[in-house]
Amino acid sequence: MNSDEQQIRDLVATWMAATRSGDVDTVLGLMTDDVVFLVPGKPPMRKAEFAAAARAQAQPGAPVIDGNSDIQEIRVSGDWAFLWSKLEVRVTPQGGEKGMKRAGHTLTVLRKVGGKWLLARDANLLVADAS
Amino acid sequence: MNSDEQQIRDLVATWMAATRSGDVDTVLGLMTDDVVFLVPGKPPMRKAEFAAAARAQAQPGAPVIDGNSDIQEIRVSGDWAFLWSKLEVRVTPQGGEKGMKRAGHTLTVLRKVGGKWLLARDANLLVADAS
Repeated sequence: MNSDEQQIRDLVATWMAATRSGDVDTVLGLMTDDVVFLVPGKPPMRKAEFAAAARAQAQPGAPVIDGNSDIQEIRVSGDWAFLWSKLEVRVTPQGGEKGMKRAGHTLTVLRKVGGKWLLARDANLLVADAS
Repeated sequence: MNSDEQQIRDLVATWMAATRSGDVDTVLGLMTDDVVFLVPGKPPMRKAEFAAAARAQAQPGAPVIDGNSDIQEIRVSGDWAFLWSKLEVRVTPQGGEKGMKRAGHTLTVLRKVGGKWLLARDANLLVADAS
């Protein structure tokens, strides 16, 4: 069985793995062209800005970004869906300096385009976590 | 014409007006029973906690909360919808002390229940704004 919900879970897992390995092209292929990323204290970010930031991040020697997404709910309605999750992201410099952790929730809207679920709108509420 | 989109705009306008006038019962009637509010740095808030916080806020002499929601997008798919908006909230003490302003974006999921649109999931990305 490959239900919509399972496909959305696979999308999140692929996103996390591609981010960890610095595979920017795969991550960009998991979002709509009109994607909007919302974070606290900044203007909305679109796909081109996301791509530029991700490519800068994925340079050799850059910190490794590793995360864990604990999905709390997925709802599908036609070609649209949403999910919210508890997310933890660790940023670890390769030089041995101390890394940092960010934790919090995300609320994400997804859209099915040509039979494939893609991330379409994302609100990222993560804050620095001292633990 | 009373389209879904117009009904959702009316819901937001009613929410803002009821919040301004401290009409907690009206605000509670605009959300689903299983509503989830997500904000940075806190656990998810459910309806009972929202009600308690709103009733504490609505006491005589409490600061006036006034806001302006600039809706950027509304999408409807069946009995579910989402919107994101640019939101500004001013909190003004009645004693003449200096108020504060919070600004940023929200991503909101809505659900049509018994023919009426209600707020169902909400990510609030507002931060303190010094301007």
